[in-house]
Amino acid sequence: MAFRPILGIDPGSRAMGYGIILDSGAGIKFETAGVLRPPQDLGLAEKLLFLFDGLTKIIDHFKPTVSAVEAVFNARNARSALILGHARGVALLASSTRALQVFEYTPAQVKQAVVGYGRAEKSQVQQMVKLLLNLQKAPAQDAADALAVAICHANSTLNRIAARPGLRQGDR
Amino acid sequence: MAFRPILGIDPGSRAMGYGIILDSGAGIKFETAGVLRPPQDLGLAEKLLFLFDGLTKIIDHFKPTVSAVEAVFNARNARSALILGHARGVALLASSTRALQVFEYTPAQVKQAVVGYGRAEKSQVQQMVKLLLNLQKAPAQDAADALAVAICHANSTLNRIAARPGLRQGDR
Repeated sequence: MAFRPILGIDPGSRAMGYGIILDSGAGIKFETAGVLRPPQDLGLAEKLLFLFDGLTKIIDHFKPTVSAVEAVFNARNARSALILGHARGVALLASSTRALQVFEYTPAQVKQAVVGYGRAEKSQVQQMVKLLLNLQKAPAQDAADALAVAICHANSTLNRIAARPGLRQGDR
Repeated sequence: MAFRPILGIDPGSRAMGYGIILDSGAGIKFETAGVLRPPQDLGLAEKLLFLFDGLTKIIDHFKPTVSAVEAVFNARNARSALILGHARGVALLASSTRALQVFEYTPAQVKQAVVGYGRAEKSQVQQMVKLLLNLQKAPAQDAADALAVAICHANSTLNRIAARPGLRQGDR
């Protein structure tokens, strides 16, 4: 069975979550996840370079062909939206420099896909990511959010629900 | 006399202004300027790649060692700040991937440096850029804004006013 790697990204300038799942079309499994954290003493341009280098290394290593990035509409104010935009631009650019197809999902779409409820709590997303991917423990929040958006993409691509534990093919 | 190229950038996702001036320490002169406009039918990630490729080509050709980028505080709302942040992140990243030192100036600092008045109109900036750089005609607005921030950097670096036409060294 061929597994297709999907890169999920939860953008942020202080913490950039990433996660890769493998999608067979009939189910998903965990590949890797983590959080890129640029040293706080760097200037903004160097922080962005740190994040860009980190993401492109991950892409070059795991060779996903698509990336799924959380779309943001609920920034607190213009100032925080601007800073978040910098990190998100770098996430999109890292994907497009490597010729990945980029997909965007709103937080509500991601929560709906993973928890089944568009206004779920962050901790519920974390727990469902752990469950859906058969992980020993819940990933760090930014990594869990990145995995969640990758799961959301896997679901929406094939218009099916994720391969939940205990749910057989015939149950769908 | 050694001339040091300074890259000025006026970031935007639909129009990214750039301008390079040469700074001798005793005066400045025009090198190049223009506006990068990604095709409107591209997705955001591909637009950002278009802008990144354009900026890095300009950097590789003209070999500036510093870039000056307009800092933004007056975005109309969170949504427009987010989009602008994407473009600005790409501008900073293009600079840092090429190991340029990045400097940021507020619109008020730029206007103060170029027009002598922090709340000057856009058209006044355009006209003063034309005058300060001895251009035959005023550059397009985004290009003029990029040149203005480069001029601002030249001025602030050496704590002197720009070499205005008719102003001799001894007058300062």
